[in-house]
Amino acid sequence: MNASIEPLRWDAQARALYMLDQRQLPEREVWMVCKTWQDVAQAIQDMVVRGAPAIGIAAAYGMVLAADGCDCEAAVAGLARTRPTAVNLFWALDRMSRKLKDTAAADVPQALLAEAMAIHREDRAMCEAMGDFGAELLPKAARVLTHCNAGALATGGYGTALGVIRSAWREGRLSMVYADETRPYLQGARLTAWELHHDGVPVKVICDNMAASLMSQGRIDAVIVGTDRVAANGDIANKIGTLGVAVLCRHFGIPFYVAAPTSTIDLSTPSGAQIVIEQRSSLEVTHMGDRRLVPEGVGVENPSFDVTPVDLVTALITERGVLKPLNSDSLAKLLSQNEAHSQSV
Amino acid sequence: MNASIEPLRWDAQARALYMLDQRQLPEREVWMVCKTWQDVAQAIQDMVVRGAPAIGIAAAYGMVLAADGCDCEAAVAGLARTRPTAVNLFWALDRMSRKLKDTAAADVPQALLAEAMAIHREDRAMCEAMGDFGAELLPKAARVLTHCNAGALATGGYGTALGVIRSAWREGRLSMVYADETRPYLQGARLTAWELHHDGVPVKVICDNMAASLMSQGRIDAVIVGTDRVAANGDIANKIGTLGVAVLCRHFGIPFYVAAPTSTIDLSTPSGAQIVIEQRSSLEVTHMGDRRLVPEGVGVENPSFDVTPVDLVTALITERGVLKPLNSDSLAKLLSQNEAHSQSV
Repeated sequence: MNASIEPLRWDAQARALYMLDQRQLPEREVWMVCKTWQDVAQAIQDMVVRGAPAIGIAAAYGMVLAADGCDCEAAVAGLARTRPTAVNLFWALDRMSRKLKDTAAADVPQALLAEAMAIHREDRAMCEAMGDFGAELLPKAARVLTHCNAGALATGGYGTALGVIRSAWREGRLSMVYADETRPYLQGARLTAWELHHDGVPVKVICDNMAASLMSQGRIDAVIVGTDRVAANGDIANKIGTLGVAVLCRHFGIPFYVAAPTSTIDLSTPSGAQIVIEQRSSLEVTHMGDRRLVPEGVGVENPSFDVTPVDLVTALITERGVLKPLNSDSLAKLLSQNEAHSQSV
Repeated sequence: MNASIEPLRWDAQARALYMLDQRQLPEREVWMVCKTWQDVAQAIQDMVVRGAPAIGIAAAYGMVLAADGCDCEAAVAGLARTRPTAVNLFWALDRMSRKLKDTAAADVPQALLAEAMAIHREDRAMCEAMGDFGAELLPKAARVLTHCNAGALATGGYGTALGVIRSAWREGRLSMVYADETRPYLQGARLTAWELHHDGVPVKVICDNMAASLMSQGRIDAVIVGTDRVAANGDIANKIGTLGVAVLCRHFGIPFYVAAPTSTIDLSTPSGAQIVIEQRSSLEVTHMGDRRLVPEGVGVENPSFDVTPVDLVTALITERGVLKPLNSDSLAKLLSQNEAHSQSV
């Protein structure tokens, strides 16, 4: 039996963060060692680690490394500049900053490490809770489509969308996962297929443009994706291509589920229109390795995310339960419960 | 000024068909020489030449080469086996077979060559007619999305969907063409971008999964695609991914136009459900050149076409005019006019 997949490992002796280099999967399993917060920032920017929750956890450990060098202020700013769309990054930096402020100078290194490890541990536990809530939504022998990678590799382990899929598989409710390859970065082909195959979950890869054909043939029972940010009105930002899949679900009458921890909900962003969409290098589209796919002199677009309006989302699966319908009221209510719960603990 | 693009050239002296090897574009312009019908069949199967009208023209020249070797019966069967979905292949073989039957043995080589050249010439003229009809449908400064390559490279020259785009550009009606890259074979990135850039038409490449995002931002005024077969009820088969684009058009209120010569209409196929969809090698999805994109042991799907139901098609643009609405009645009427016209000529 293979060990469960974790993209981030803290080495207490070396005081270093080990990251599974996701750019090199599935061909090679290479671990990158980050010894400074700058290493972590660069790794997030270069997508050594990606996925909203995993970016948050990595940034938290980045703050631990910054504290070792007494460089916390610069680190908060530098880590925040790495990628603009996923809110978990800012959420984790806020939480680490609050801990920093509340801690006597001498205790900072230890307190920040404890906080980062708590964020890491809680994320894994939230994914498992989400998985169990979400699995109940699926029919027996479900054939599920997912887009990008919202898996163990994108989180502290287990995954958000793939957490639901793992729980459904464990409960015998799943017959097949179709993974959109997810151009241009191929997170579906390279990462989702790799981690599900690793865990023995039946998975097939399709090109993004094949989803409509499968749906029209009645071969998809549900779509489950993750998200990088849920706005206050319920609009969600996720990997480019998510909006198209959501529109197809509406057309073909297929439920479209979004799985995310409550740390992904951002009440300070009123709607999807205010979410900053990262534009990445054109090389991701024009080239595959050394091979040129697009003629020289021809421009491309490369938005890394799109926004799916709340009315296309069947339900939001969180670690506290399923929001159905998803809207500003159900979101606000969930978060106030969350705070009440946190206060009572 | 560059010469206009033609994917097929008949060399009368050498009695050989020269094909621009579309697998090697945009990196290299290589011409493959076909001296036997078997060479032509292999080239069609291997996608040296692709696109429904171009396949038909190539097969017609294949019959000329077969006649040189007195091998016409085997050639009809062998050429018909190359690719199942595009009806133009069977249409061209039928037309060549009829000519063969109606011609005295001594005159066959010359008569078949004249027929193949007529098919080639007529195709180009039909594309130009289609282009002019279709351009009138577009608003000023139109921003048009196209999928796959229904261009000069897919026809005798000028193109079907790209014929409309060329005419619109000539008439000053076009501001931008967005070309879906069209996984897995990348006909949009490699071929559509190459031929439009060659002709000075403004073009940008996007990944297939970015179309929804552009549409949601109001950045697409119309979609124009080609088709490999129009069924009697108006359902159309076209490159995988076309159905998804058509569904997006419906959702975002964008017209979805299909451009094709009447030789693509197949009244013997009642609806899209009866169209045979070619499944191609999984290597097209799992690998890019030598690079593995999908982990070993993980399966893929690779349907080369999908079916768009007639109710998602705003209009069919043909060389005889625009069918709007498209349905079995308008199709049957168009074809009966066509026959009447042919008889009267």
